Amino acid sequence: MDEKTLRGLLERFKAEKVDLNDLIGKLKSLPYQDLGFAKLDTHRALRFGFPEVIYAPGKTDQQILTLLKKLTERCPGRKRVLVTRITGEQAAFLQKRISGLRYFPEGRILTGKIPEHKTAGYIMVISAGTADLPVAREAEITAMVLGSRIKTLYDVGVAGIHRLLDSVKMIQEAACLVVVAGMEGALPSVVAGISGKPVVGVPTSIGYGASLAGFTPLLTMLNSCSPNVVVVNIDNGFGAGFFAHLINTTR
Amino acid sequence: MDEKTLRGLLERFKAEKVDLNDLIGKLKSLPYQDLGFAKLDTHRALRFGFPEVIYAPGKTDQQILTLLKKLTERCPGRKRVLVTRITGEQAAFLQKRISGLRYFPEGRILTGKIPEHKTAGYIMVISAGTADLPVAREAEITAMVLGSRIKTLYDVGVAGIHRLLDSVKMIQEAACLVVVAGMEGALPSVVAGISGKPVVGVPTSIGYGASLAGFTPLLTMLNSCSPNVVVVNIDNGFGAGFFAHLINTTR
Amino acid sequence: MDEKTLRGLLERFKAEKVDLNDLIGKLKSLPYQDLGFAKLDTHRALRFGFPEVIYAPGKTDQQILTLLKKLTERCPGRKRVLVTRITGEQAAFLQKRISGLRYFPEGRILTGKIPEHKTAGYIMVISAGTADLPVAREAEITAMVLGSRIKTLYDVGVAGIHRLLDSVKMIQEAACLVVVAGMEGALPSVVAGISGKPVVGVPTSIGYGASLAGFTPLLTMLNSCSPNVVVVNIDNGFGAGFFAHLINTTR
Amino acid sequence: MDEKTLRGLLERFKAEKVDLNDLIGKLKSLPYQDLGFAKLDTHRALRFGFPEVIYAPGKTDQQILTLLKKLTERCPGRKRVLVTRITGEQAAFLQKRISGLRYFPEGRILTGKIPEHKTAGYIMVISAGTADLPVAREAEITAMVLGSRIKTLYDVGVAGIHRLLDSVKMIQEAACLVVVAGMEGALPSVVAGISGKPVVGVPTSIGYGASLAGFTPLLTMLNSCSPNVVVVNIDNGFGAGFFAHLINTTR
Amino acid sequence: MDEKTLRGLLERFKAEKVDLNDLIGKLKSLPYQDLGFAKLDTHRALRFGFPEVIYAPGKTDQQILTLLKKLTERCPGRKRVLVTRITGEQAAFLQKRISGLRYFPEGRILTGKIPEHKTAGYIMVISAGTADLPVAREAEITAMVLGSRIKTLYDVGVAGIHRLLDSVKMIQEAACLVVVAGMEGALPSVVAGISGKPVVGVPTSIGYGASLAGFTPLLTMLNSCSPNVVVVNIDNGFGAGFFAHLINTTR
Amino acid sequence: MDEKTLRGLLERFKAEKVDLNDLIGKLKSLPYQDLGFAKLDTHRALRFGFPEVIYAPGKTDQQILTLLKKLTERCPGRKRVLVTRITGEQAAFLQKRISGLRYFPEGRILTGKIPEHKTAGYIMVISAGTADLPVAREAEITAMVLGSRIKTLYDVGVAGIHRLLDSVKMIQEAACLVVVAGMEGALPSVVAGISGKPVVGVPTSIGYGASLAGFTPLLTMLNSCSPNVVVVNIDNGFGAGFFAHLINTTR
Amino acid sequence: MDEKTLRGLLERFKAEKVDLNDLIGKLKSLPYQDLGFAKLDTHRALRFGFPEVIYAPGKTDQQILTLLKKLTERCPGRKRVLVTRITGEQAAFLQKRISGLRYFPEGRILTGKIPEHKTAGYIMVISAGTADLPVAREAEITAMVLGSRIKTLYDVGVAGIHRLLDSVKMIQEAACLVVVAGMEGALPSVVAGISGKPVVGVPTSIGYGASLAGFTPLLTMLNSCSPNVVVVNIDNGFGAGFFAHLINTTR
Amino acid sequence: MDEKTLRGLLERFKAEKVDLNDLIGKLKSLPYQDLGFAKLDTHRALRFGFPEVIYAPGKTDQQILTLLKKLTERCPGRKRVLVTRITGEQAAFLQKRISGLRYFPEGRILTGKIPEHKTAGYIMVISAGTADLPVAREAEITAMVLGSRIKTLYDVGVAGIHRLLDSVKMIQEAACLVVVAGMEGALPSVVAGISGKPVVGVPTSIGYGASLAGFTPLLTMLNSCSPNVVVVNIDNGFGAGFFAHLINTTR
Repeated sequence: MDEKTLRGLLERFKAEKVDLNDLIGKLKSLPYQDLGFAKLDTHRALRFGFPEVIYAPGKTDQQILTLLKKLTERCPGRKRVLVTRITGEQAAFLQKRISGLRYFPEGRILTGKIPEHKTAGYIMVISAGTADLPVAREAEITAMVLGSRIKTLYDVGVAGIHRLLDSVKMIQEAACLVVVAGMEGALPSVVAGISGKPVVGVPTSIGYGASLAGFTPLLTMLNSCSPNVVVVNIDNGFGAGFFAHLINTTR
Repeated sequence: MDEKTLRGLLERFKAEKVDLNDLIGKLKSLPYQDLGFAKLDTHRALRFGFPEVIYAPGKTDQQILTLLKKLTERCPGRKRVLVTRITGEQAAFLQKRISGLRYFPEGRILTGKIPEHKTAGYIMVISAGTADLPVAREAEITAMVLGSRIKTLYDVGVAGIHRLLDSVKMIQEAACLVVVAGMEGALPSVVAGISGKPVVGVPTSIGYGASLAGFTPLLTMLNSCSPNVVVVNIDNGFGAGFFAHLINTTR
Repeated sequence: MDEKTLRGLLERFKAEKVDLNDLIGKLKSLPYQDLGFAKLDTHRALRFGFPEVIYAPGKTDQQILTLLKKLTERCPGRKRVLVTRITGEQAAFLQKRISGLRYFPEGRILTGKIPEHKTAGYIMVISAGTADLPVAREAEITAMVLGSRIKTLYDVGVAGIHRLLDSVKMIQEAACLVVVAGMEGALPSVVAGISGKPVVGVPTSIGYGASLAGFTPLLTMLNSCSPNVVVVNIDNGFGAGFFAHLINTTR
Repeated sequence: MDEKTLRGLLERFKAEKVDLNDLIGKLKSLPYQDLGFAKLDTHRALRFGFPEVIYAPGKTDQQILTLLKKLTERCPGRKRVLVTRITGEQAAFLQKRISGLRYFPEGRILTGKIPEHKTAGYIMVISAGTADLPVAREAEITAMVLGSRIKTLYDVGVAGIHRLLDSVKMIQEAACLVVVAGMEGALPSVVAGISGKPVVGVPTSIGYGASLAGFTPLLTMLNSCSPNVVVVNIDNGFGAGFFAHLINTTR
Repeated sequence: MDEKTLRGLLERFKAEKVDLNDLIGKLKSLPYQDLGFAKLDTHRALRFGFPEVIYAPGKTDQQILTLLKKLTERCPGRKRVLVTRITGEQAAFLQKRISGLRYFPEGRILTGKIPEHKTAGYIMVISAGTADLPVAREAEITAMVLGSRIKTLYDVGVAGIHRLLDSVKMIQEAACLVVVAGMEGALPSVVAGISGKPVVGVPTSIGYGASLAGFTPLLTMLNSCSPNVVVVNIDNGFGAGFFAHLINTTR
Repeated sequence: MDEKTLRGLLERFKAEKVDLNDLIGKLKSLPYQDLGFAKLDTHRALRFGFPEVIYAPGKTDQQILTLLKKLTERCPGRKRVLVTRITGEQAAFLQKRISGLRYFPEGRILTGKIPEHKTAGYIMVISAGTADLPVAREAEITAMVLGSRIKTLYDVGVAGIHRLLDSVKMIQEAACLVVVAGMEGALPSVVAGISGKPVVGVPTSIGYGASLAGFTPLLTMLNSCSPNVVVVNIDNGFGAGFFAHLINTTR
Repeated sequence: MDEKTLRGLLERFKAEKVDLNDLIGKLKSLPYQDLGFAKLDTHRALRFGFPEVIYAPGKTDQQILTLLKKLTERCPGRKRVLVTRITGEQAAFLQKRISGLRYFPEGRILTGKIPEHKTAGYIMVISAGTADLPVAREAEITAMVLGSRIKTLYDVGVAGIHRLLDSVKMIQEAACLVVVAGMEGALPSVVAGISGKPVVGVPTSIGYGASLAGFTPLLTMLNSCSPNVVVVNIDNGFGAGFFAHLINTTR
Repeated sequence: MDEKTLRGLLERFKAEKVDLNDLIGKLKSLPYQDLGFAKLDTHRALRFGFPEVIYAPGKTDQQILTLLKKLTERCPGRKRVLVTRITGEQAAFLQKRISGLRYFPEGRILTGKIPEHKTAGYIMVISAGTADLPVAREAEITAMVLGSRIKTLYDVGVAGIHRLLDSVKMIQEAACLVVVAGMEGALPSVVAGISGKPVVGVPTSIGYGASLAGFTPLLTMLNSCSPNVVVVNIDNGFGAGFFAHLINTTR
């Protein structure tokens, strides 16, 4: 029941064309989502500052196109969309059919308009090895598209720990950090010890044998001695970037 | 090399009693921790706003007493300490020997002076079942002792989902949330869908059989469809409260 | 907002004491739970035919007493309550303080009034070994207290398979079956092959070594070649009895 | 020993050509399957209302063809067959060789004649995400082919929870429900809380990292706080549809 | 239907008091277990040469007593019983109430009369460490009570491998072998390489950390490079002794 | 040092051409394998009745050819070889280069001369489903090539349990049995209950989801209630056939 | 056959009291262990520099006493023994009965005479937290009793990383290092990065939830980015100390 | 701050252009890495005797080329580089573009100049089966490139244990050993028992079913009864060769 219908109903009640008991019955049986949950849903879009995110794997090119069209129709000027884990081929298919889309191959992300005004604070994205880069870039681009300022420090695993120490100031002044690591997954703890800021650890499936496809760094991060480390799913760069942006824009 | 020695060295250089090359050699070989890392360590205390946290299990009463004394000597007036997972017997033993300590039996926490001035924003701590309460209270008291305002909503599992919906406004206005759940561990996702704020999920070891001593809710939370959920270790109420306080005081 | 308030509001609108726009705003902001979810909650009690179930482990005697009092106050004459996994000591404590409670030590269940009129169809509860009995009895008593007729066949593991075959007719005429088994957990498949009726498999934690505290029979039952087998959590006799009663009273 | 042989034997006994003791010995050594188990087997077909189900993976086109021919020869007019997890290529191969077969590509099912008369009650099939659709459709088509009325509600994960709430009435009036979900697998619990009817949860292997190829939603469902949830194997849409039809046709 | 009833029925048929069709109907509906399966059951006892085995854990003293009485009543003179995993207290309780029982504390076995005539071939029971002894003795005594000749070689782990090599001839001349090992579980492979005879590996739960309560030796034995190694459940000395006796008495 | 050398040495000692101390030194440093272990090695070939088995996966065609040539050179007339898990292409490559080889595609086995004289007793190989056939055939052909008589009963899973019961006599008269099953893996227990003979269970990796690539039937078989069941590695048809042949030829 | 017997035999052969063929037969049947393996066994003691180590858990006081007596009889003056994981009560029992034993309660080790002359190089034992101390001390005392010089650095987890950096020189000059850590287990990697010397990582079972009783640090250490880290079993301080001593005394 | 700046600063201080307090402040805030950690990094290269190791999987040909160029520019004459797990195609690509590189296809290693002077002691590399060869060769070539003398003993699994015993002397005289084994992984324990020297066990992912892709031999080696066994990650031949070289060059 949209507002217009409700308004008409109430006016007919006032005009005594609808009985009070009937009206109350109708109001009581109003699908609550019309009053409440649809609002919640709108709230959700407002709060998250982003209408919808599309996870590409397992969807056909055509399915993604349909979803994207529906989303971009709502706000045609802005094209605020985010498609994650998308291949170059899929992205090219979509860019031919919808104008104004931009593809980030390193982070496997397709997006539209990137906001010009950025947050005052910045998120620092740190990764351990070259192989962790796609996940780190997914986090970086996600947070950037959402509107956060980003600084990055890549390839600072154990072999390059001095690079991490070179950047102590930048690490300590970040609003929060996303730290991406596979194998032993010890980097988030080390960064968290230096930084003191909220650290979102992202285990990656990089490694072999006892790395257990990412479960070893996941377990390591969950056991961090530093209490300023939390964890997201293996390879979930998007989730980490999203969460870091939330922290960065809290209050 | 303490500052006094350094000062003397430089004065002797100025007085031409020490050669420039010798001085540079000495400065280069300065143990870096004297210049750098000890400072980092001080920074750490400043940043976290809390000198040290003691995890009681596996320590004798005497060991905890010694640690507490060292900590309270540093700032005798304030007694800013936090002992977690401590039994009533241990707490009583310590309270007899150090004045000004306060014990929270529900959260198994011993602490000293609780700050009077609280943060503007509040952390909301939500738990699913009665059995999850000790972990929820550990999170609540940790964040409170650190200085955050707290609101709580306990016992809102599936059977009482309407209570959760009764509190939508309070959930949406929180700065961030700690959601504690055992068994299936679905509550953080549901709260995250309603709230849109950062949610720290805490799986608990409550349950039997296929709850896998907390691994089932842990896995559930890591797979949350809501991107505003992060996870800490099973039963780690302290870590969740600490992290939520960090978010609440960011910027 | 209760109905009376709503009625007054609408009458004041008709009497032109409330503006249409104001009224619409008020109606829109109606807490949906007042219209919708609280009703859902009532529905839930009606549908399940049972106000509430209390899982005793991890609760103090006093906590259970408080919960029981609240429940029995609602319908004092009937005392429709169910407390599961309760020890004899806990039961005795409660029976002293609330009259009309009955304790089933084999199934570790405390309940109140058992319904006189039973269902036409019956649930058959079958268990493999002596050690599985407590779980089987938990299922049996749960379904009986809810109002189902029950038949049982206990101790019919591999060594006594002929007893199972002796009871083919009784097995085939049941409305549905609960089959409880530990160790290898093959009994539900065998019963399901004979019966053709819905079979709820309950793995138990009985066994040692490779029985993995119930995970082996759980996995076995999930892989059943018979498509009429579903599974509940390890040792979850209550859930199986509850579900079987639902099937028995469907339509 | 077929009936004719038995009849002849008894007549020869009556005609005193066979001694009583010999006859008893012969009767005792009658292969029990001739008297008993073959009957059981017939019973099985009667009870399940369906002669045989063929699981396609791991079988050659030729093997499936042979099996199908044997089955359709028994009841040539009706072609009551069900082949699951079958590819479009396999289906086309079979449709060329056996007339009257129908292929459902979304559910990967090949079947014959679909019954005209349906059950009075209906099964509701609900799925969380687009990626869970093949499993949901497998359940839906299985139950439909067996003769149940079906209603469906697809793509109602956390992001679209309001769609679930839009359908409360339809959910509550179903005879039973099949709920399909991957990732965190929380949907069956939520539906079960709303519905109160028997819910068959089907975990899917959709997801990555900590979804453990379907074990995470499987564990979640086994730990459901709602006692009206049971579980089948990962991706086992067929089993869920079969079981739901059994419930729907009980009594 | 017992034989007497059957005989009566046939005589009444011959006397033309029962119609042929009626008789055939009656014969067809004969519960098959009366003709077939009960016989199977008797066969089972004959084949295994042992009426019943009682697994003591989880049973009360009284329950074991009742079971034992029923068993010993069948063949009072021989007292062919076997109770496994029984404590000294339980054994003493039973020995007071039933005469002629013998308790082996090292193997935690209570039995009755031990057969005088042994098999020609012998089973060799080998164990790795002192801590594996209870399981090895359980295997040894089980096979001995069943009637097999036994030789043993205990405490021949890696540190004492020369003792194993000292006994090559005895190992090679055994009919089959039971090899018990915890920790790394490599002994069965080594023995199998020397012996060439059937080896039943028994992993034990001895060890700590990465021994995984017996799963590590279990996995090791399943991966044995020697094709003459098979495996039973962790700590299952009874099963191994039983199986070895079967091999020893085959043909 | 061969016997001739030793004999010469001793004679030279007697002839006082070798000093006693030198002789003792030489004897002490005799490589023990010349006296003992090489003999053991010969014993091994004699005992197992088969020179060597080649596991094809991970070996190049050329590597297998080289190994086969070395083996067939030893006993050119007999060509007693066994290559397991070999593809049709590999087999064809080898058959072109070595005459007298025979390939069994169902069992993925390449062998040479099959012995004419078979054992008196027979091994029964039973499998649950069509998909388990390659493993069952691997067991069957292995035992046949080694010289055992074989009977088979394939495709007797739960759906066809009456076929199993049709063959009770054949099952009971086997010397021992190999039972192959995937999914729930319950067949070995059922067969073992009927047979009473030694049963070697072979779990297969057939199935999906909770079948855990064969670990579920493996665990089921390890927990068998029937003490006459032992287990080999997942899909290890060769090992099972080999072991069954050992039992069949014991004594 | 000891040397004396062999010498006598050869002399009797020379004196023509023993036939050549008989002699060769005797020599061939010489138990090879007399020539070979017993020597190996002696070698083993020589190489390891320690006669035998007794693992106390699961052994009675009396069993340990018997073992100790046998060991100390061999070399009464030196009492070179090592009993690990022994309680204070057990140690006291033994010290009353055998003089010259020394008990280290922190490392749960009982030993005899400690060598005066130590190695030139030293082993550095480092541990992360207070709770890891018993394992670290077990490693320390083991290596010390074996004769290595030891330096220790305890309680240098993430919170105290500056202490580790304070000791860089001592870490870099060690011959090798034992690093003990529970929880996330990242310390060995960090130490290995600083040191460049061989590091033996010892995971401990300290922690809760996702520490998996030591498997998380075990997995972390196996995935170390530093190639100079190897790993021993969880809590295996003895093994690490032993191995480090081997490295320290190589060449 | 480089040395020149520091020198200038100190001279300006001496010339009284900089105040003492200012100077001390500046010195204290010197980035520690300029004084300390960069030096550590240089130390690291010196200690390990090797500039950098490149793990090829997951890197493009171009990325490896860039890394190699940077490394070989530092020390153009020597080309001390090591690329592991590199395919023949990748190696050929690089050899075309950088001269003086050598490829070892069996060990999947690309390296430059191999040192002429080798260590006095040698490392022994032993492997169980043909399939373990690539991992064994990776260890062998790594240690050889680093400068260690190597001896190898390949294909000495259970079937060829006499070959191992043939080589006892060579095994006992090695400085340390690398033992590579898949399947049951028992070889390191056996070698360790014979040798007494440090043994680095390398589990391989060779095998099927219960070999768990290398976790079974990993667990076996962690549980070794021989205290001179340590373990590295599954298939980590590089790490084992590196560590063995460290032991071989200690002191």
